[in-house]
Amino acid sequence: MAEGRFYLLVLALSSLGSVCVLFTVYWMWNWHGGFAWDGSTLMFNCHPVLMVAGMVVVYSAASLVYRLPQSWVGPKLPWKVAHASLHLLAFLLTVLGLVAVFRYHNSKHIANLYSLHSWLGITAVFLFACQWLLGFAVFLLPWASLQLRSLLKPVHVFFGASILALAMASVISGINEKLFFSLKNATRPYSSLPGEAVFANSTGMLVVAFGLLVLYLLQASSWKRPEVGVTTEGQPLLRERE
Amino acid sequence: MAEGRFYLLVLALSSLGSVCVLFTVYWMWNWHGGFAWDGSTLMFNCHPVLMVAGMVVVYSAASLVYRLPQSWVGPKLPWKVAHASLHLLAFLLTVLGLVAVFRYHNSKHIANLYSLHSWLGITAVFLFACQWLLGFAVFLLPWASLQLRSLLKPVHVFFGASILALAMASVISGINEKLFFSLKNATRPYSSLPGEAVFANSTGMLVVAFGLLVLYLLQASSWKRPEVGVTTEGQPLLRERE
Repeated sequence: MAEGRFYLLVLALSSLGSVCVLFTVYWMWNWHGGFAWDGSTLMFNCHPVLMVAGMVVVYSAASLVYRLPQSWVGPKLPWKVAHASLHLLAFLLTVLGLVAVFRYHNSKHIANLYSLHSWLGITAVFLFACQWLLGFAVFLLPWASLQLRSLLKPVHVFFGASILALAMASVISGINEKLFFSLKNATRPYSSLPGEAVFANSTGMLVVAFGLLVLYLLQASSWKRPEVGVTTEGQPLLRERE
Repeated sequence: MAEGRFYLLVLALSSLGSVCVLFTVYWMWNWHGGFAWDGSTLMFNCHPVLMVAGMVVVYSAASLVYRLPQSWVGPKLPWKVAHASLHLLAFLLTVLGLVAVFRYHNSKHIANLYSLHSWLGITAVFLFACQWLLGFAVFLLPWASLQLRSLLKPVHVFFGASILALAMASVISGINEKLFFSLKNATRPYSSLPGEAVFANSTGMLVVAFGLLVLYLLQASSWKRPEVGVTTEGQPLLRERE
C-alpha cells in the first residue's frame, strides 16, 4: 500500500518533470525558432532547456535514488554508483547549458555574468561541482572513515536540497528575465500577458511545484533508507507488506 | 558550549538579516530617491524593503522561535503565541508591501500580476496566509486533537520552510527585474555592472545566504525542541550543561 503510494508519486513526479522539460522545449521552439549549436540566438535557446533538464529534473532523479524501496536492502554500493552517475549526467547537461549561453553571449559581444540570475545560477553550479567532488571523494571512494562519512552526511544532504532550491530560484529569475527581453518590443508586451507570457510563466510555476514535491519526498522520513543498525522490519514500507 | 554556539549563530543571523533589510533600504534610498506612501515611484520603493523585511527576515525570526533553548522547557503556549504573533507581524509587513506595489501600479496604470515574479510572489503570500490560518486553528486554538496536530505538524513544518524558499526565489527575481527596468536607459547599463547593479546583486546574494542559514537551522535536529515524552536530559544542549 505504502509502496504503491510511493510509485504513484514517482509516476506523478516523472510526468511533471517531463512536462517541465517539454514545456521549456516548446517555449523555445514555438516562440523563439528552435535550436542550433552555432553561437546564434538558436544556441541560446538550448540554455533554458539544458538547465531545467540538468539542474532540476535529472538532478532531482539523482537525489531521489535512495528513496526507492529497492535501494533499502542489500549492498549500498550499486545505488551509490547510480546516485553519482545520474548526478554526473545532471552536471554534464548543466555545463552544456552554460556553454550554450556563454558562446551565444561571446559571439554577440554581450557581457557574461552581470545579472543577479547569472550570479545565483553560477553559484548553484559551483556548489553542485563542490558537492559532487566531495561526495565522490568521501562517500564513493573507499578511503574515508565511517566517522568522517557520518559527520559529512547531514552537510551533503542539506546542500543537496539547497542546490535544488537555488536552481529553482535561478530558473524563475531566468524565465522572468527572458520574457522581459523577448517581449520588450512585441506588439503585445509582457504586461498584457500574451500567449508566450502565460505559457512561460506557467512553465516556471510547474518547475516550482516539481521542486517542492522533490524536496518534500527528500525530507519525508518514511521514504528514507534505514540507517545501518536499524532493523528493516521497523520501516513502514516493509511493515505494511508483511 | 553548544548553547553558546547557538547564540553565536543567532547573533550572526540577526546581523545578516539586518544587513539584508538595511541594504534594501539603502538601494532604494540612494539610487531611487527614498520613500513615500502616495502612489508614486517612491511608494514602489517601499515594496522591496517590506517584502525582504516581512517575507524573509521577520518570517525567519518567527520560524526559529522553537529553536531557542529557553523554549524547550516549561509550557509551550507562550512560545506558540510568540511564534504566531511574529508571523502575524511578518504577514502584516508583507501585505503592506503588496499595497505599496498595487497602489503604485494602479496610480501609473501599470498592469498588476503579469510577471513570473508576481505570480510566484502572490502564490507565496497566499500559502503564507493559509499556513497562518491553519496553524492558528489547529495548533493555537484548543479544540484540535493531539492526533490531528501530530498529523498536520510535518505538513506545517514543510510548508513553513517551502514558503521561505518561495519568498527567496521571489526576492531574487524581483531584484533582477527591478535592475533590468531601472538600468534600461542608464548611461551605464546593467550589463556593464554599475554601482547599483553590484550593490543590488550583492543584496540578493545576501538574502539567499540568510535564507539558507535559516533553512539549515530549521532542519538541524540538534536545535529542535524535544517532543513530548522525550526526556530533556537526552538533548545535546542540556547534556553539555550538566
